[in-house]
Amino acid sequence: MTSPNTLIFMELAIQQAKLALDALEVPVGCVIVEDGKVIASGRNRTTETRNATRHAEMEAIDVLLEQWQKNGLSMTEVAKKFSNCSLYVTCEPCIMCASALATLGIKDVFYGCSNDKFGGCGSILSLHLKDTASLNKGFKCAGGIMATEAIILLRTFYDQGNPNAPKPHRPLAHQATT
Amino acid sequence: MTSPNTLIFMELAIQQAKLALDALEVPVGCVIVEDGKVIASGRNRTTETRNATRHAEMEAIDVLLEQWQKNGLSMTEVAKKFSNCSLYVTCEPCIMCASALATLGIKDVFYGCSNDKFGGCGSILSLHLKDTASLNKGFKCAGGIMATEAIILLRTFYDQGNPNAPKPHRPLAHQATT
Repeated sequence: MTSPNTLIFMELAIQQAKLALDALEVPVGCVIVEDGKVIASGRNRTTETRNATRHAEMEAIDVLLEQWQKNGLSMTEVAKKFSNCSLYVTCEPCIMCASALATLGIKDVFYGCSNDKFGGCGSILSLHLKDTASLNKGFKCAGGIMATEAIILLRTFYDQGNPNAPKPHRPLAHQATT
Repeated sequence: MTSPNTLIFMELAIQQAKLALDALEVPVGCVIVEDGKVIASGRNRTTETRNATRHAEMEAIDVLLEQWQKNGLSMTEVAKKFSNCSLYVTCEPCIMCASALATLGIKDVFYGCSNDKFGGCGSILSLHLKDTASLNKGFKCAGGIMATEAIILLRTFYDQGNPNAPKPHRPLAHQATT
């Protein structure tokens, strides 16, 4: 699964996560690829928007679907295009994002580190698996791609202390070392 | 749970669903209530936006959070305000929306008919239940409120034939009767 192209696209997702880190956001980034080309990118913007649902995936999805709407694509054309898309994201999609991706019918998802608290692609729930009971068609999914880079970015963020967490889960770095 | 106020707010959610029906959208509507007052409303806009994630709940959430952002509220203030909010929606939130509502930390959710295909509040998954493994704080939830009205609207839509479904699941009404 980790072809050279996979690594190239994941590197672009990591660049998005770095932009998020620079903006004091939880550093998660993604790109959406169609026919071997990046057609959208997104990064976590929960702090900037004060909206805890504005994860990287939702940002990239909305950019793309708004563009297709402006281009006058029908619902069927949008669904067909999305079914040819791959998502590369630095962290396993959460339950909300995994459900959104399944609803939209994405072809496949490649992610970096797993999301042990909210992961929707195996860690907490397995929304990528086909489920006839819920009519979820699922999507192909592979994790652990450049996971170390993704984790380093997240650790960098949390070691600084998340300034937006109501109650920090761990002591701030400068407090811990003084 | 079904106090007079509950029915009044659900009636307003049904009015939103009727607006969606008039716009040839799957008729689901909602309102968000804070301190006994409606502060946001939303209706399904998946067809208009060509975005299958634009459910009524996501519409109402985004209106509200954008407004609070413009008003300069901090992340903590937004979280506190949302924890005092109740959602009234004509159909059980799907897995994506239920997860979003749990992430945002809504106080409680009142819904009309259940969502047997994608419901995230008991029908398929129970994302409203507190789960220490996933750190999901959950939210209070009550269903079956004015469910008949919600179902009638959905039946009206599907009996007309969903013009946006790639392959209609059932014959169009005028085809079935001719």
